[in-house]
Amino acid sequence: MPTTATLLVDCPDRKGLVFAIVDFLVRRYDVNILHADQHQDAELGLFFMRVEFSTEAPNFTQTSFEETFAPIAEQFAMNWRIEFAAAKQNVAIFVSQYLHCLADLLHRHQTGEFHANVALIVSNHESARPLAEFYGIPFHHTPMTATTRPEVEAAQLALLSAHTIDLVILARYMQILSPKFVETYPRRIINVHHSFLPAFTGAKPYHAAYARGVKLIGATSHYVTEALDEGPIIEQDVARISQNDQLPSLIQKGRDLERMVLSRAVQWHLDHRILSYANKTVIFA
Amino acid sequence: MPTTATLLVDCPDRKGLVFAIVDFLVRRYDVNILHADQHQDAELGLFFMRVEFSTEAPNFTQTSFEETFAPIAEQFAMNWRIEFAAAKQNVAIFVSQYLHCLADLLHRHQTGEFHANVALIVSNHESARPLAEFYGIPFHHTPMTATTRPEVEAAQLALLSAHTIDLVILARYMQILSPKFVETYPRRIINVHHSFLPAFTGAKPYHAAYARGVKLIGATSHYVTEALDEGPIIEQDVARISQNDQLPSLIQKGRDLERMVLSRAVQWHLDHRILSYANKTVIFA
Amino acid sequence: MPTTATLLVDCPDRKGLVFAIVDFLVRRYDVNILHADQHQDAELGLFFMRVEFSTEAPNFTQTSFEETFAPIAEQFAMNWRIEFAAAKQNVAIFVSQYLHCLADLLHRHQTGEFHANVALIVSNHESARPLAEFYGIPFHHTPMTATTRPEVEAAQLALLSAHTIDLVILARYMQILSPKFVETYPRRIINVHHSFLPAFTGAKPYHAAYARGVKLIGATSHYVTEALDEGPIIEQDVARISQNDQLPSLIQKGRDLERMVLSRAVQWHLDHRILSYANKTVIFA
Amino acid sequence: MPTTATLLVDCPDRKGLVFAIVDFLVRRYDVNILHADQHQDAELGLFFMRVEFSTEAPNFTQTSFEETFAPIAEQFAMNWRIEFAAAKQNVAIFVSQYLHCLADLLHRHQTGEFHANVALIVSNHESARPLAEFYGIPFHHTPMTATTRPEVEAAQLALLSAHTIDLVILARYMQILSPKFVETYPRRIINVHHSFLPAFTGAKPYHAAYARGVKLIGATSHYVTEALDEGPIIEQDVARISQNDQLPSLIQKGRDLERMVLSRAVQWHLDHRILSYANKTVIFA
Repeated sequence: MPTTATLLVDCPDRKGLVFAIVDFLVRRYDVNILHADQHQDAELGLFFMRVEFSTEAPNFTQTSFEETFAPIAEQFAMNWRIEFAAAKQNVAIFVSQYLHCLADLLHRHQTGEFHANVALIVSNHESARPLAEFYGIPFHHTPMTATTRPEVEAAQLALLSAHTIDLVILARYMQILSPKFVETYPRRIINVHHSFLPAFTGAKPYHAAYARGVKLIGATSHYVTEALDEGPIIEQDVARISQNDQLPSLIQKGRDLERMVLSRAVQWHLDHRILSYANKTVIFA
Repeated sequence: MPTTATLLVDCPDRKGLVFAIVDFLVRRYDVNILHADQHQDAELGLFFMRVEFSTEAPNFTQTSFEETFAPIAEQFAMNWRIEFAAAKQNVAIFVSQYLHCLADLLHRHQTGEFHANVALIVSNHESARPLAEFYGIPFHHTPMTATTRPEVEAAQLALLSAHTIDLVILARYMQILSPKFVETYPRRIINVHHSFLPAFTGAKPYHAAYARGVKLIGATSHYVTEALDEGPIIEQDVARISQNDQLPSLIQKGRDLERMVLSRAVQWHLDHRILSYANKTVIFA
Repeated sequence: MPTTATLLVDCPDRKGLVFAIVDFLVRRYDVNILHADQHQDAELGLFFMRVEFSTEAPNFTQTSFEETFAPIAEQFAMNWRIEFAAAKQNVAIFVSQYLHCLADLLHRHQTGEFHANVALIVSNHESARPLAEFYGIPFHHTPMTATTRPEVEAAQLALLSAHTIDLVILARYMQILSPKFVETYPRRIINVHHSFLPAFTGAKPYHAAYARGVKLIGATSHYVTEALDEGPIIEQDVARISQNDQLPSLIQKGRDLERMVLSRAVQWHLDHRILSYANKTVIFA
Repeated sequence: MPTTATLLVDCPDRKGLVFAIVDFLVRRYDVNILHADQHQDAELGLFFMRVEFSTEAPNFTQTSFEETFAPIAEQFAMNWRIEFAAAKQNVAIFVSQYLHCLADLLHRHQTGEFHANVALIVSNHESARPLAEFYGIPFHHTPMTATTRPEVEAAQLALLSAHTIDLVILARYMQILSPKFVETYPRRIINVHHSFLPAFTGAKPYHAAYARGVKLIGATSHYVTEALDEGPIIEQDVARISQNDQLPSLIQKGRDLERMVLSRAVQWHLDHRILSYANKTVIFA
């Protein structure tokens, strides 16, 4: 029975890259290429490639691949990784009091939209517990104050480590993560911000959008970096509003946007469709 | 034969406003109400109304209406104006070297989308002259340098005044208007900015959007005020981009957005569908 | 404390309608008009109005209103109804095996988006029972075969009658209702069809859309009438697809559309924002 | 100086296709791959590939490529073609009385959006002549009646042949082409239909959409085949309408959609981004 895997590569753009990669995969592992996408950033001189393939080669293992691909990777100065389709990632969802994104993610997961193991739900409030229990996901209540924040965050990190979490989803989690937390999961924390970034960073973006009189509201999912609301954008969407939309209906329409942009980002991340560089993302969807 | 007109009102919100207006129109001028829209800003306690009506009353004139409506307007502290459908507004279009918005506006005008008289086209370049001549609109070449700006602008204002211009459209006009110019045409200058405001104000917004890695680009039409790119927003729209859109295709997609948001704003303004307050607009479309 | 209510009117268009209605409301019940919307169908010569108002008049009751408004209604040959904001409608949700619309509706209801009492969930399958129990809604399992259909439907109708159901939502309910069922709830049954109607009526619309090679898929919410998929359309939305979307991802994207168009239709119906005529709807949103 | 070209391939899906193509291009012509896109239709077992590449190989000519690629093409039963970027296609635009699509195409062409030579404009009316002359395109007036249709069409085909036309654009051309005309330009005639196909085929689709009460109107660009309005869809788009949009404003909004979907289709065709099969299109955009 064949093994399916995805190879992700980024490196300085040079002639011969596609050929080198395809040639290696076919000659060494006799692969069947299922999807191949590549992209060049002409301005920065960068090359990106995603190859999804299957193989029946008995010698196709993580260790074997790492050893055999290393010379090519070195030759072209590649950043790269190989992901096996059989491996399910472990996901933790952080949430505060607004539960619409959480409810949406859990229903989608139950429906089979996400290839992942939702290992735990973490919240500084109790309100998500019933949903967690309904969907059978362990719930961890981690309230924090300014004083207890360091130790609580240390406990959260220990929890994530104990469950070998691959991806942290901030589903309207209203606490700011410390630089240490962020560094521990580089390009592995996805947040949803309820504005069309870079407009309306910071707190209460819907209020700011309403005050400015915009005609479309937006939401943005992005990787979390040290700079608040400035990480690489993964997905954005907007909805039309009018003067009939006072703040409450504007916030209601925004909830639908948040659900959409967050769930798309999560699915693309889990399917290894996102490459990130220079504070941007390349989405091979 | 009936006269058609539009009454626009804004004032502090109070009980009895709709009744007072409708009662006045029907009893005094025996009107037939064609469209009536109203809006309240609950937060600021403001009321807005647009009534489009027809009447066969022989005494229905601007002067008569002003006299008879004055007591009601005073009672409710209304800002108001009456616009007669028969009156065509005089429009001036300012443009620089990018002609896509101009070509679009002129074709729409020819098709009958705008109820207006396009009286003149003004440009600091010669490139728009052929289009102007093709559509039979007088073209005025007003190049300027930092030194000549004051006198050139004075000449432009004299030109607008001589043609009793009602509306100035900045169709990708790359000069910043002086405060005096702006004050002369309050809420009567419509600009198109090639970003989703308030994101990417100032110069080269497409370059900034590209650098930030947004997933949607936008365009915004707005009334010009003294603060650059901060006037009341009239219309916005967005288009999806991907990594395949390097700067040139991003700019190309943006042109379509600019055309759309500018032409909608112009039509709504000409049809007296826009009320502006507190740096916002109410669109009765 | 004031009473809030909504008056909905449709009738042949005639001069004086807005005035007659506003004059009546203000003089008889001293109302404060909160929102007033009207529409004319010029082609058919029809007039539609929705007035939301509050009043502190002690004599403002259903009975009083019916008596006092009757002469005006008769004079203008109006269809009309008055809806009191305090009254919550009773809602029944019918569902089969696909639960995404149900899960979405129940979460929205819990969040407070719907002004309604979800009285029961009816299904020909057992799969919705856990969700129903989680949200505390009585669940009725009504499996049917071709033979038992008449008696099962009779039991369903008895159930709806016993709960004085005002609105039936078909949230991907895969059984066709009998004419008798449909007649019992005219303009009170909302269905979601997973295509952009009138394209792809009938069974398996996503398969048909995929086979035709459309570039956008859609979903439609509509009132149920005797003619399958031909009732008045309430809301539609679309999503872009590409060749990368084979059937499963097309169906996944469609689920999001179904949720959106169904929930909007339900909210508008519950807020008395929909008037229906000539197989169309007027939405005062 | 390098030569840039695009190879387009479709064939039964088999293992080794990507490798065979890339291997050939690199080994034989030492190409630099600029973009490579591939697609599989899993259901039909088909493979599609588009490779855009540059090469400095002196032996890279049409004849050489045809000879050397033939064995591979034969081995995999490929349909294929090679397009050189230097070659500009000859385009003819057919139009009747509505000129919005024509004006849009000509302005885009002038702006540099299309890599093509617009060789002639053909119309059964005189109304497009001024636009044609303004943009310096030869204009041919070919009026026809039921009786003269065969001979007029023969003259049109002779004209197209004389100008070695590669692509015919029907920019709201209100005559139905004969089967012979269609057969002469297979997958080389692009039409815009003013509905969201397959809804509202045939005449007066906006009237039909209005009558049905849809909430979104659409437009579709497609290749023309013998079956009217049933050719492979290239692009579609929609716009939201409301009861405020009576027929004239619905038609106005539709014009913007027509412009967009037609111009995108033309650009993709000219950039060799469209592969067509089984009445569908694959767009590598």
